[in-house]
Amino acid sequence: MTVSLLDRRHATLGRHSPLFYDEPVHLVAGEGVWLTDVSGRRYLDAYNNVPHVGHAHPRIVEALRSQAATLNIHTRYLNERVVDYAEALLARFEPGLDRVLLTNSGSEANDLALRIATQHTGSRGVLVTDCSYHGNTTLLAGMTTGLATHEPLGEHVRSFAVPDLDAPANRARRESDVLAEALASVDRAVGELAASEHGVAAVLVECLFSTEGLPRVPAGFVSGLAERVHAAGGLVIADEVQAGLGRTGARFWGYQRHGLAPDVVTLGKPLGNGHPLAGVVTTPELLEEFGSRNEYFNTFAGNPVSAAVGHEVLRVIDEEDLVANTVALGLRIRDELAPALAAHPRLGPLRGEGLFFGFEVFTDGSREQPDGPATKRLVEAVKARGVLLSRIGPTGSVLKIRPPLALREDDVPVLLEALAGAVDELDG
Amino acid sequence: MTVSLLDRRHATLGRHSPLFYDEPVHLVAGEGVWLTDVSGRRYLDAYNNVPHVGHAHPRIVEALRSQAATLNIHTRYLNERVVDYAEALLARFEPGLDRVLLTNSGSEANDLALRIATQHTGSRGVLVTDCSYHGNTTLLAGMTTGLATHEPLGEHVRSFAVPDLDAPANRARRESDVLAEALASVDRAVGELAASEHGVAAVLVECLFSTEGLPRVPAGFVSGLAERVHAAGGLVIADEVQAGLGRTGARFWGYQRHGLAPDVVTLGKPLGNGHPLAGVVTTPELLEEFGSRNEYFNTFAGNPVSAAVGHEVLRVIDEEDLVANTVALGLRIRDELAPALAAHPRLGPLRGEGLFFGFEVFTDGSREQPDGPATKRLVEAVKARGVLLSRIGPTGSVLKIRPPLALREDDVPVLLEALAGAVDELDG
Repeated sequence: MTVSLLDRRHATLGRHSPLFYDEPVHLVAGEGVWLTDVSGRRYLDAYNNVPHVGHAHPRIVEALRSQAATLNIHTRYLNERVVDYAEALLARFEPGLDRVLLTNSGSEANDLALRIATQHTGSRGVLVTDCSYHGNTTLLAGMTTGLATHEPLGEHVRSFAVPDLDAPANRARRESDVLAEALASVDRAVGELAASEHGVAAVLVECLFSTEGLPRVPAGFVSGLAERVHAAGGLVIADEVQAGLGRTGARFWGYQRHGLAPDVVTLGKPLGNGHPLAGVVTTPELLEEFGSRNEYFNTFAGNPVSAAVGHEVLRVIDEEDLVANTVALGLRIRDELAPALAAHPRLGPLRGEGLFFGFEVFTDGSREQPDGPATKRLVEAVKARGVLLSRIGPTGSVLKIRPPLALREDDVPVLLEALAGAVDELDG
Repeated sequence: MTVSLLDRRHATLGRHSPLFYDEPVHLVAGEGVWLTDVSGRRYLDAYNNVPHVGHAHPRIVEALRSQAATLNIHTRYLNERVVDYAEALLARFEPGLDRVLLTNSGSEANDLALRIATQHTGSRGVLVTDCSYHGNTTLLAGMTTGLATHEPLGEHVRSFAVPDLDAPANRARRESDVLAEALASVDRAVGELAASEHGVAAVLVECLFSTEGLPRVPAGFVSGLAERVHAAGGLVIADEVQAGLGRTGARFWGYQRHGLAPDVVTLGKPLGNGHPLAGVVTTPELLEEFGSRNEYFNTFAGNPVSAAVGHEVLRVIDEEDLVANTVALGLRIRDELAPALAAHPRLGPLRGEGLFFGFEVFTDGSREQPDGPATKRLVEAVKARGVLLSRIGPTGSVLKIRPPLALREDDVPVLLEALAGAVDELDG
């Protein structure tokens, strides 16, 4: 059955459409944080950030059905739904970030944010980290450093390294030294761009540094980066596609952990709980400038069905107290996992925030050499124990644990036992 | 009420988010080809191509609800829905066009098609018509000729004029002369690009020429254009976002009217009846090449909810015989409208195909000078009579009539009477 479906998939979507795991999981149903495969086996979903409030959430399904049965139309007619949602969404931001352009994907959002920045500054130069991914349009492919694209890095793009206090080379150093070195590297990248014909349009940065492997960055790094970009005349674009909407707990947006005041914020993945919904939040001045210069329109974006779904996601987050849940369960997992990690010679300390966390796997007991292949074996072993997760980082050596925020107290032992069993197997 | 909603909209989406009509319509419900505003007034929708099988179609709503209540997940796990849909969609194309990359919007689809063409050819140069629109990403903004973007036309972009046999200057000419002149202009554009550092990657062309104003092109123009691009080593990308899915009647895809064999076809607007769904259809060879070179992934695209909706749209088109309906009602409208247009000194002949048609409005009885402002008044006067439509073309002088394919026999007199009344008012 699975083989035949895989053949049919190859014959329509092609052989390169990515699939997880040595033996792909054939899913047929989901509910809360649980997924069911075609054989009836249930998996704890400790990977997916898109079904933010849980798979097949009844309130989200009903918002979708009810609005689709009433009206689904573009925004060139007046309709309350999109305005209601825009108000509810913007209420989650600091004053100043008062306007939103809805889109259908994080890729569309980041591409649009860069159009705004490029037009505003009259410059083209963009700064990104050296292991990042912000989307799949032509523009974004030319600034992708975290996965393979055929396009070379654009001449107008400079990348910089994100300092990690837990990296082997930094463990014995003072935080202030790591910070100074990292900001010096940012200074070089900004300086190079500023001196080039391209100038500095923006830094595009995801403040949790997910693709980068959830590094523990020195305090002051992100704000120092932003200061330098601003000083060179560029805008700061916070990509909240992964870090946003309560994912990190406590703060609703990832950039707020760093005291950042971004000029533009981009939103994606969890915004519609799986419905294609994303957006760009910015200031009235930047939107006025962009809007007056471009006949910008997006056919699907902001339709009342997308808006009703997005609005219901915000309500469910509040009414089910999912941010508090993220903080509580995130801390509990940390408390239980940290001692086990500290005691294990091949595992690094816990990384990440809230319900987006992981740890690095090393080849030996001195924790010097990251071990991507062993991390892959760990991912497969955790899956064999009924829990789905993945791995990240430049060499794929960091476990990526990122369940829906609907994770419950009872699910935590399931996750921890699967991890413990898989780690035991790694040793064996 | 409407004023206050408009103020709230300006304070969230900004003042430039486009709205139709001098007095925007505030919609609250839709069913079939009918829309209802906040005062309870009903409008015949003779504009919208996205709600292809009709507003709030019960089968589409149920497909959406039922799959959303079961599972909504990305394509890195196996799932039948996306494969079932891909097979059903690809069955609508000629053999050879056997692979599909699903996306969330026509913009994403056209941007991706150009990534494929650019990588395949090793060239960057793109040909577009001189009044076209293919989407809102940075790449596409730099090749937009049909509406205002702040980005200048890219150095690697050349535009060519689309010949119109009904244009005042061509009316007295032989079709073969118009064709020869038009192809000579294509030769120049292709030759310029081929001789430049950019080379020829592709022509991106929408074969109904909607934004261009539905010109009546000479037989052999589109195939001649394709031959020239192929001869220069470029790919032919048929943008079916507007012309596809039975819209033109008889042929399922717009490019088939011209006997074209495109290398890549892009899909959008009507594909999900309002659900954000779009895609790129191409050959196994081109997808294999692209897939092997890029870790391409699209988080939302191809999720089982989008796939279930897209699949149900195809089924409804078949089971409700909507393509035959398009042919029949398109012909009936032509039969009734053509004599009235021929008899009117300020109106041009009928343009377009199937249920996408219009006619040009001129300033005087000699039908020499297109009259955009009068066309705008006509649009407003038709709206005052309870029918929604719009206008297109380089000067906005062509009426744009494009109802959902769910239009019924009984709706035709409503449309024709509103048009007749508005034309009378124009004369008055």
